[in-house]
This record gives sequence, structure tokens and C-alpha cells, in this order.
Amino acid sequence: MLNLIIAEAALELVPHEISGHASARNEAKRRGIKSSETLLDRSIHHHAMLKLLDGAKRGRPDLVHLTLLSITSTPLYLEGGVKVYIHTGDNTVLDLEKRTRPPKSYARFRDLVQKLLVERPESGLISVHESTLPALLDRIRPDLAVGLSTQGKTSSLEALAVELSKASNPAVLIGGFPKGHFTPETVAKLDELVRIHRESLDAHVVAARLIYELEREG
Amino acid sequence: MLNLIIAEAALELVPHEISGHASARNEAKRRGIKSSETLLDRSIHHHAMLKLLDGAKRGRPDLVHLTLLSITSTPLYLEGGVKVYIHTGDNTVLDLEKRTRPPKSYARFRDLVQKLLVERPESGLISVHESTLPALLDRIRPDLAVGLSTQGKTSSLEALAVELSKASNPAVLIGGFPKGHFTPETVAKLDELVRIHRESLDAHVVAARLIYELEREG
Repeated sequence: MLNLIIAEAALELVPHEISGHASARNEAKRRGIKSSETLLDRSIHHHAMLKLLDGAKRGRPDLVHLTLLSITSTPLYLEGGVKVYIHTGDNTVLDLEKRTRPPKSYARFRDLVQKLLVERPESGLISVHESTLPALLDRIRPDLAVGLSTQGKTSSLEALAVELSKASNPAVLIGGFPKGHFTPETVAKLDELVRIHRESLDAHVVAARLIYELEREG
Repeated sequence: MLNLIIAEAALELVPHEISGHASARNEAKRRGIKSSETLLDRSIHHHAMLKLLDGAKRGRPDLVHLTLLSITSTPLYLEGGVKVYIHTGDNTVLDLEKRTRPPKSYARFRDLVQKLLVERPESGLISVHESTLPALLDRIRPDLAVGLSTQGKTSSLEALAVELSKASNPAVLIGGFPKGHFTPETVAKLDELVRIHRESLDAHVVAARLIYELEREG
């Protein structure tokens, strides 16, 4: 079984620094909730985000949703062959029970994730806890931990799938952010950093191809 | 170059029969537009849709968005190797100029498509015209037209990619609806109906895998 980690994902509630900004207040008012309980979203909070540290890597819940759907709609996932974790840039982990199907509608996904990040349930189909990436890997204890990154050594996805299928508890990290790279702390915990294409690919494209190769291999 | 048709897609404006329904009126009011100028969406109009003919095949703009993104984020598409058409269940065709990138945010995609379906521009990055599927194929004039369907004969995607790469102007149809099958009129225009998996797969999964196989083949 593959442990698939959407790592350092651009998924978080609106942070304190900008929760009073007009864009955050208006969106929250329109939806009848507190701005600190809505998701940070570049398509809504772009201007306010300019003052956030590391802003370019944050506020893309749409990418996380897309990536999740590209995984959870596959035969391998539906058969229980993939366990998904979403690790966010602010070190929260959403741990999905195997075979859990997230909502296909973005609005429903957004509402669900907001509720999860506010309520932080410790059990259920999706549980939530605080954890760094190294701590998450210490918990999973993979015998092979591979990160996919344009900073890695070049390999084909086929070759990677062969290697993963030989491991007993492999973990693959896909960056859940629009731009940038894994932090050095994350890279330090990996056995391999692999580049599967000459250009940078969107996380959902990478996830879809990885799972397809694993199905072919299996 | 591949002509990729998202066929009989569950994408349309709210039809006259239900535009006065509370769910349609409330959604339109909330967004400050006419209900007849919003997209039919099962996650909003579920109850009203129960009285629509062929309702199970309609009202899933989210699936069309997902499928489009799974195509337009790929290297093959970005290099101009794929031309995309969205043919809707009510016989409207959205014709995307090669390399056109649709919005990744669902809300922005929805707003764009609503505007396109209302204004029906005859030129631009995305042009809109009325056309049946057979008429669209007559215009494209493919030397090989393949539909992907669980009603087709079993083949691997690899074998299909080999066949497509030998054609000079191939067209592939992927169903843009959540359930059901192509109409007999559509099937009658195809050279082949191919089944690539034992289970029914979501359109976005099929599109992602098809393009990946074509890249490998190319």
C-alpha cells in the first residue's frame, strides 16, 4: 500500500494578520461565518496576501482539492491501495481513512475542510492533528520515502513505480503548493528526491500519473 | 494532434422549466444575476432537477471543469498537441483555441462559462456555436474517431495510444456526464467504441491517462 502525502499544502484558515482585511471580512459576511473560519484563498484574498510571509506558497485550496480528486477517483485508491495524508504549510495533518471520498464540488470540499480545521476531530473518516512533516514520517515509518521535485535526480515514473512496488510501506510526497520547493527539513527526511519531468508539473497531474503507473506495475 | 471532445457534457444554463424554482431563484439572487443565466448544478438544484428529462446525465459543471483541468495542465496540451472541444448535452460546442488555459478556480470557471453560454461569442480563445456531435465530427473530419465507453470492446490505453499516434487527425470522445452512455446518434458516427477499464472511470481520470499514454507514445 502506498502512503501518499500532499506535503506543505497551501491549505489553511485565514490567518490572524489578515482576518480584518476587507476581502476576508466581505467573504465571511457573505457566507455568514467568521473570517478566521474561512479558507485562505488567493482568488479571494490576493491583495491581503501580499503582506503574508511566504505568500506565494499559500492560499490554494483549489489545488489541494484537484490533487485529492485525481487520487481518490482512481481504481487503486478505490480498492484501498492508497492512504492519503494532507500535510499543510502550517503543520496540520488531515489523515483520510482509506477509500474516503472527498466532495467533488469545490464549495462542499471548502465547507468540509473549514469545519475540520476549526473542529479538529481526533477520529472519523478524516481526522486532524498537529504534526510536522518529519513527525508524520516518523509515525508512518516508511521503508522508502520519496519526494517528487524538479530539484531531484531525473528518473522515469515507470522506474519509480517499479521501485515503490518492491517496498513494503512506501511513502511518496507531492508538493501541495503552486510554486517553490520542499523545505530543507522535509528534504532531509527523504530517501530520494526524484524529478519525473523536465518541466514543473501541477500536483494533480503528478498524482494522476503516479497512481496510473502503480496500477500498471501492480 | 489529438482532437479531444468532452461529449454530451453535463453543462448548460438553468433551463426554463426550473428557472422559477426556489433553489434557482435563491442562488441567482445571491449572486446578483438572472437564474436563466446561472449554470445548472446538481449540488444546488437537485430537487428541482428531479422533474427534468434525462436529469441524471445533467447539471455537473464541476465534472467538466475537472476534466478540462486534467487535460489542460499536461505537457502535451501546453505544447499544442491537443485541441479541446466541449460538446454539451443540449448541443452547444465550446471550441477552445489550442493552449488556452481555463481558470483553475471553480467559481471563476463557472462565471466564465455562464458568460460564454449567454453571449455566445463567435471568435476568441473560446468560441461558442450550436452543433450536434455528428455535425462537429463532420467539421473536424477525423481519420479515426474513437469513443471511450464501458459499452465498447476491451483494449488497453497503450494499444489505443499506438493506434491514435498513427492517425493524422484523430478524435477521441470522452463522456462529460456522471452516469449513462453516449446516445446512439453519437455512437453511429464513431469508428470504434473502446473500453479501457473493467469499471466505469470518471472522465477526468480517463483524460489524464489518455494524454499521459500519448506523451509516452510520442
